[in-house]
Amino acid sequence: MAVEIDLAEALRTTRAMRRFTDEPVDDDQILRCLDAAVQAPSGGNIQPYQFVVVTEPDLRARLAELYLRAWERYAPAVTALTPTPKSEEAADRQRRNMAASDELARNLGAVPVHVLVLMPKISMTITDDEGDMDVGPTYASVYPAVQNFILACRAEGLGTVLTTVYKIHEAEVREVCGIPDRYEVVALLPVGHPRGRWGVAARRPASALTSWNRFGEKRR
Amino acid sequence: MAVEIDLAEALRTTRAMRRFTDEPVDDDQILRCLDAAVQAPSGGNIQPYQFVVVTEPDLRARLAELYLRAWERYAPAVTALTPTPKSEEAADRQRRNMAASDELARNLGAVPVHVLVLMPKISMTITDDEGDMDVGPTYASVYPAVQNFILACRAEGLGTVLTTVYKIHEAEVREVCGIPDRYEVVALLPVGHPRGRWGVAARRPASALTSWNRFGEKRR
Repeated sequence: MAVEIDLAEALRTTRAMRRFTDEPVDDDQILRCLDAAVQAPSGGNIQPYQFVVVTEPDLRARLAELYLRAWERYAPAVTALTPTPKSEEAADRQRRNMAASDELARNLGAVPVHVLVLMPKISMTITDDEGDMDVGPTYASVYPAVQNFILACRAEGLGTVLTTVYKIHEAEVREVCGIPDRYEVVALLPVGHPRGRWGVAARRPASALTSWNRFGEKRR
Repeated sequence: MAVEIDLAEALRTTRAMRRFTDEPVDDDQILRCLDAAVQAPSGGNIQPYQFVVVTEPDLRARLAELYLRAWERYAPAVTALTPTPKSEEAADRQRRNMAASDELARNLGAVPVHVLVLMPKISMTITDDEGDMDVGPTYASVYPAVQNFILACRAEGLGTVLTTVYKIHEAEVREVCGIPDRYEVVALLPVGHPRGRWGVAARRPASALTSWNRFGEKRR
């Protein structure tokens, strides 16, 4: 089911969705989202990615088990690293985010679709008589497609969240889906009908992260 | 100037823009695009990026000179690597793309705004008693913002293209803008008013890149 939404509004309000209803997701919806994903740019238009769409409940349960194991190691470590929030509001937000992430980790198996994004591990270095050229990481040709996928879900009335914590057990994730060792699994995107509202997520404002002309210079 | 455009349509038709008119770009437009960029997800919401917006003609000229030098080394090497296109149409497309990239390299100094995206080189590894955890590359928290920026330009009536070829001379790029060595410059985005039409770029279709449930399995 396509949703009409203005681009600028979608960019502003498409936040991570970690809670979903039981409503099933149509394979065609996922394919449309992937078709939007591949319209993102890639260096030399090589499209160095593949996708695995996991819908079988047994496979999702096994991915969910690995994910939860990874989460249970990651969550306390990252909590220990996180500075004490500066305001009650920020502390509240942090608690809500942790609770939602924890709920996702405990319910991932029930999310109707898991999309895995694969990237070949082989180096894409370009070489000439002078030697190797660094013309950017292959990731630069993959994560733009992931972001397009996230936004395309929004246009389908679906929600998702970019996760990478499963990487702690990436070898086992590959095994579950028969993914050859020559691919890195660069994202796991659980997709479903969102439970929760779209809205502007809390961020440091761009102006605080932007220099003008020279690093550290303010706008005149 | 904000442009109303449907999200799904924008995802489908926002292609790389490499030719621009002389019309100036407003600083506020760039800031709005950066505000949209930071709404993209980042791991633990850490937003591990900064931006340098280059508008001074002298600095743009110096970046353009480095870019052209990089392009003149990259272009022949990548052409030598590129397989012969399978159809006259594909060959045509390849020639047009090379011509547009070449034109960009020769005219970059005239593009009104160059946006550099920076990422700290420090490792973001999380550690516990068991050792280091790989929870994904920092790039996963940066290139989604770059893609949001590209789409936000579209919503402002602007065009841009994700470039990384300058990385061949990245140290000198950093020098031009006084960027500390601790940052990697992960993208240079020339921004201007597009000369050329929006449309669906040629891509391998997602269906050809997608497995269902297990790697290599087709959709049932």
